[in-house]
Amino acid sequence: MSAPARVVYTLQELAVALGLPYRGDAALQFRAMAPLSSAQEDELSFLQDSKYLPLLAQTRAGALILSPEHAEQYDGAAIWSENPYASFAQAMQFLYPEKALTPWRSPDARIAADADVDPSARVEDFVQIGSGAKIGPGVWLESGVVIGPGVEIGAACHLYPGVKVLAESRIAEHCIIHSNAVIGADGFGFAQTEAGYEKIPQVGRVILGARVEIGANTCIDRGALADTILGDGVKIDNLVQIGHNVVIGADTVIAGQTGIAGSTRIGCRCRIGGQVGFAGHLNIADGTVIAGQSAITHDIRQAGVYSGVIPAQDARTWRRTIAQLNRLDGILRRLRGAAKAAHDSSST
Amino acid sequence: MSAPARVVYTLQELAVALGLPYRGDAALQFRAMAPLSSAQEDELSFLQDSKYLPLLAQTRAGALILSPEHAEQYDGAAIWSENPYASFAQAMQFLYPEKALTPWRSPDARIAADADVDPSARVEDFVQIGSGAKIGPGVWLESGVVIGPGVEIGAACHLYPGVKVLAESRIAEHCIIHSNAVIGADGFGFAQTEAGYEKIPQVGRVILGARVEIGANTCIDRGALADTILGDGVKIDNLVQIGHNVVIGADTVIAGQTGIAGSTRIGCRCRIGGQVGFAGHLNIADGTVIAGQSAITHDIRQAGVYSGVIPAQDARTWRRTIAQLNRLDGILRRLRGAAKAAHDSSST
Amino acid sequence: MSAPARVVYTLQELAVALGLPYRGDAALQFRAMAPLSSAQEDELSFLQDSKYLPLLAQTRAGALILSPEHAEQYDGAAIWSENPYASFAQAMQFLYPEKALTPWRSPDARIAADADVDPSARVEDFVQIGSGAKIGPGVWLESGVVIGPGVEIGAACHLYPGVKVLAESRIAEHCIIHSNAVIGADGFGFAQTEAGYEKIPQVGRVILGARVEIGANTCIDRGALADTILGDGVKIDNLVQIGHNVVIGADTVIAGQTGIAGSTRIGCRCRIGGQVGFAGHLNIADGTVIAGQSAITHDIRQAGVYSGVIPAQDARTWRRTIAQLNRLDGILRRLRGAAKAAHDSSST
Repeated sequence: MSAPARVVYTLQELAVALGLPYRGDAALQFRAMAPLSSAQEDELSFLQDSKYLPLLAQTRAGALILSPEHAEQYDGAAIWSENPYASFAQAMQFLYPEKALTPWRSPDARIAADADVDPSARVEDFVQIGSGAKIGPGVWLESGVVIGPGVEIGAACHLYPGVKVLAESRIAEHCIIHSNAVIGADGFGFAQTEAGYEKIPQVGRVILGARVEIGANTCIDRGALADTILGDGVKIDNLVQIGHNVVIGADTVIAGQTGIAGSTRIGCRCRIGGQVGFAGHLNIADGTVIAGQSAITHDIRQAGVYSGVIPAQDARTWRRTIAQLNRLDGILRRLRGAAKAAHDSSST
Repeated sequence: MSAPARVVYTLQELAVALGLPYRGDAALQFRAMAPLSSAQEDELSFLQDSKYLPLLAQTRAGALILSPEHAEQYDGAAIWSENPYASFAQAMQFLYPEKALTPWRSPDARIAADADVDPSARVEDFVQIGSGAKIGPGVWLESGVVIGPGVEIGAACHLYPGVKVLAESRIAEHCIIHSNAVIGADGFGFAQTEAGYEKIPQVGRVILGARVEIGANTCIDRGALADTILGDGVKIDNLVQIGHNVVIGADTVIAGQTGIAGSTRIGCRCRIGGQVGFAGHLNIADGTVIAGQSAITHDIRQAGVYSGVIPAQDARTWRRTIAQLNRLDGILRRLRGAAKAAHDSSST
Repeated sequence: MSAPARVVYTLQELAVALGLPYRGDAALQFRAMAPLSSAQEDELSFLQDSKYLPLLAQTRAGALILSPEHAEQYDGAAIWSENPYASFAQAMQFLYPEKALTPWRSPDARIAADADVDPSARVEDFVQIGSGAKIGPGVWLESGVVIGPGVEIGAACHLYPGVKVLAESRIAEHCIIHSNAVIGADGFGFAQTEAGYEKIPQVGRVILGARVEIGANTCIDRGALADTILGDGVKIDNLVQIGHNVVIGADTVIAGQTGIAGSTRIGCRCRIGGQVGFAGHLNIADGTVIAGQSAITHDIRQAGVYSGVIPAQDARTWRRTIAQLNRLDGILRRLRGAAKAAHDSSST
């Protein structure tokens, strides 16, 4: 069961909108998009990965987006694309467009007298905007958002309910920040003394580039002295922790629950799995790919795929493996001794 | 020091309420429940695990809930139960009942004109309820809760302060959602293009069954096309990440900080530890048990206990083990060579 | 680029404020602090770690805080300190002081009639304070904070926007709680029955000592029967999960995304890395240090450095290592057999 489209397109309209060639009944109407396996006759689907080729014979989808080479194996209605997945994303944007934003300032929003809120912005109930903040055109601040003093939010950003942006952060245009994310909390900085830990005031900012997306409940700490910086097009999933002074290059994507300790620099176009942990003060090369749950404890100077994941297995077997791993030193030493003794005695 | 009971019960009253036999002074009063080791004379305790049997001789508890077999080893006041831990849970519910909900609509809540809020609900200050939302009888929406347009909340749900429920989510009756949890944020879906990442609109919903409990700051993403679904009785701890299109079967429990990537299906009655990571598009059998911090990278077709945990140890020893692990390939090859050479030469 | 200081100090003023000796032009003015590598002439820097000694020859900083021994290798303006990092922290506090708090009660805060809010506190818009709560002098409750019934907040605490403090928690003086943290949600307590899971009412509190700092989106659950307790000076980073009945000793620091299961007791002055997972019901010795991402599954009785981290590596190499690890049992058995056979035959 797929969500019904917000707008109904014909096959021809969609092909034209995508700027792609098509084959089939131009007047065919689509009321939703759906995966190959569950799509119905009034739904559009797509094929990206050739491992799903066998589904072509079975799918009931009204039409498919697929690559010209796969198109030969399918004789139904089709839109041809060199990158079917990207065309699927675009088709989704046509079929399920964002609602147009109605400008509004809720009488229940509290906006500092010297804040500069563009008249085309939408500011919902219970939003607080601090002194000197700037809110660009077409920005949507949903219920309970807090914008701290001196913060700047660029054009067409969408901040979902409960987002907090503090510490004079700068957010460029077209960013999306999901509910309860916290941008600009203090970094974790303390100096050890005999009397315990002395707090190091955190005085840097968070700088987000254009088209950045930040997941729900994610935290991006302000810099300690300098700034924490995310480049254009960076996409961060939910519950991610980004420490102070981290720098992330453009178009890098980071999956849920990953944590990046302070001052680590991650390159452009990296793809980082979920629950990865980065130590602090590292440098990670452009284009690096890291498997989920890996621990990154050293610089990565060369792009490639990195992993330290241990796939879970039957717990009893695993306990034996761990026991053996922990005795490995002794076992190997004894084996080397035995091999050497046998070799020595056999060669005499 | 245990929290004082909100209601005082006698031994007899409690046994009757639990529907269980008892032994001892019917008029004995309980002012709290407490663990065996710290319980005082006016406190009730319980014994579940036989490893705590030695504590029976020492406990000062006024009475115990324990199984008939253990009851023979204890001559104090007692309530007999085949499942003492479950009876303890029930006794807690009697001694520490939820306060009755007083219906209320705060004048500081902002409720869309066409939202349908049952008159028996309690809606606190700074709550926002969107257009077309339905709030069932006896629902408690605490301060700062946001209910998006078209969301439905079933009878007797309790949403703690700061919870956000978005994206036309459906929540069945008797659910508990703890503070700042986010239900229905966008899933993490992007298509890679030459120009960076294209956002795939997320248009599915979140569907929660009855008696689901969701921990604080947990995120449950809306489906991409179809829905994200949690069955009846599912219990999720704090800071858990549940990706788009995940399906979780009834009565599965998941501990804190676990993450489940998109489209993974987890069976019924599974028990999942904390900080576990699931890759996407997996199938996990009913009744599976997974140790904390494990990585699940493949389907689990057979119920059982699974683990990939490495217990920490002295860091110097561990560094040696890791070094050996990384040289394992070469070491084993040399050993095999040596063993073979010795064997060959000795057998000539 | 470092954040400009909020207050300008001369070298002499700063040395006097720190109570430390200095050398150089007393009238030298500092407009910021900065790292050695990027500091300019009007900026103050510091040297803690001798691995940065080579930077002394290159730094353009106007003056340095450094230890007397390192001072001999540097002939510029200097403040001498036995603990340069702690003196840096203090200098930051002088140069970047907190703004003085202006007492205020927003007309948009909702405060129970019987709550006791000190007149010197600052209570922002959309704050809700429950019945019987006590808010001490100089407390700052930012926008959207919720203080539950019966909660007590000590003097000079700062609760950032969106913090929720529930369940009659007690918070001592000078605590800092960052945005959207949740103090006092229910612990994860259920009893398994044939009909599913029975909720165990959570009735304990959270008790925070003085000078505790809690990171953004961190969760500290209320106790089940007794309390969850954090000692004086404990520092907790973002997105940390602390289960019910956990006890943490004074001056322990815990990095981001670490999780501590119920009833575990952690000693004083421990240093715990990020993404560490603790099983429940453990005891961890005072002064223990744990590397990030480690799994702690057993008591730690002796202070030391503990680790179970696997540094990520080239994914293909790692897959081979894992395969070998999983076949280790069989390989070692065969090698032992071969070594023994060779030895036997060679010794006949």
